[in-house]
Amino acid sequence: MKLVLAVIQDKDSNRLTDALAENNYKTTKLSTSGGFLKEGNTTLMIGVDDDFVDDVLNVIRDNCSQRDQMVAPISPMGGNADSYIPKPVKVEVGGATVFVMPVDSFFKF
Amino acid sequence: MKLVLAVIQDKDSNRLTDALAENNYKTTKLSTSGGFLKEGNTTLMIGVDDDFVDDVLNVIRDNCSQRDQMVAPISPMGGNADSYIPKPVKVEVGGATVFVMPVDSFFKF
Amino acid sequence: MKLVLAVIQDKDSNRLTDALAENNYKTTKLSTSGGFLKEGNTTLMIGVDDDFVDDVLNVIRDNCSQRDQMVAPISPMGGNADSYIPKPVKVEVGGATVFVMPVDSFFKF
Ligand code: NI
Ligand code: NI
Ligand code: NI
Repeated sequence: MKLVLAVIQDKDSNRLTDALAENNYKTTKLSTSGGFLKEGNTTLMIGVDDDFVDDVLNVIRDNCSQRDQMVAPISPMGGNADSYIPKPVKVEVGGATVFVMPVDSFFKF
Repeated sequence: MKLVLAVIQDKDSNRLTDALAENNYKTTKLSTSGGFLKEGNTTLMIGVDDDFVDDVLNVIRDNCSQRDQMVAPISPMGGNADSYIPKPVKVEVGGATVFVMPVDSFFKF
Repeated sequence: MKLVLAVIQDKDSNRLTDALAENNYKTTKLSTSGGFLKEGNTTLMIGVDDDFVDDVLNVIRDNCSQRDQMVAPISPMGGNADSYIPKPVKVEVGGATVFVMPVDSFFKF
């Protein structure tokens, strides 16, 4: 048994928990925030038998990898909104930081 | 030293933390939610010397085991409320998922 | 790789995450509460290479150690407020409970 701790972006949270549930992996979700960038993130705890750790890691990678996304920039305050056509900019979203932790023993009551 | 992580139902949380406190076990409570069923749950972290892990597990089992409870069902929307006598139904409540984690070292500052 | 779990007081949280960030340690912050005293506290998760665990522990000790603080006491209800001069009282604030946990493997996606 291992405990997988995955720190991911809020926006990827539902997709990942759905994908894990489809594969019968149960997750517990912790509300967390990044101390460094203050951005909202989520930490998932997933208890999993040793043989399935690689599969769980694959599901996390498939659903949360860092990727580029085109977003409309925020309009500048006080600018001439009529003449301003915002150009989409490329930002990186997603990403996962994953710790696989050993478990001494596991119980269901 | 071990770190016991117990994922339990919200409704069992106060009873368990009280029972643990009576036995001088300090707990830290994490707000969590189940990714699978979306129900509110709570995760407790309990740091405990190796010799007391079994005792902590017993306290968790005594206070959080899965059990049957009779509950009044929700009245059907738009039904004839006057003639409707809700029959209590049996539901399972409680339950605990517990991970006992090894700890390399422990500090109090 | 180790996962450092530090349970600290809310009031020390920003100072500690800033101090850790200055040293390039990334933290993830969990909203927690103490089951024993019900006081608000915060748990930080810090993933760190084995060689830097002692340094992280020093930063935690420097920013969160238990210390005495003089505070104005709350005025007694119904007392004669005009004649009452509150005497500051000494209380202990801060403190950290720290678990250093082994990590089997670590991934960035
Ligand atoms: Ni890139
Ligand atoms: Ni049953
Ligand atoms: Ni003192």
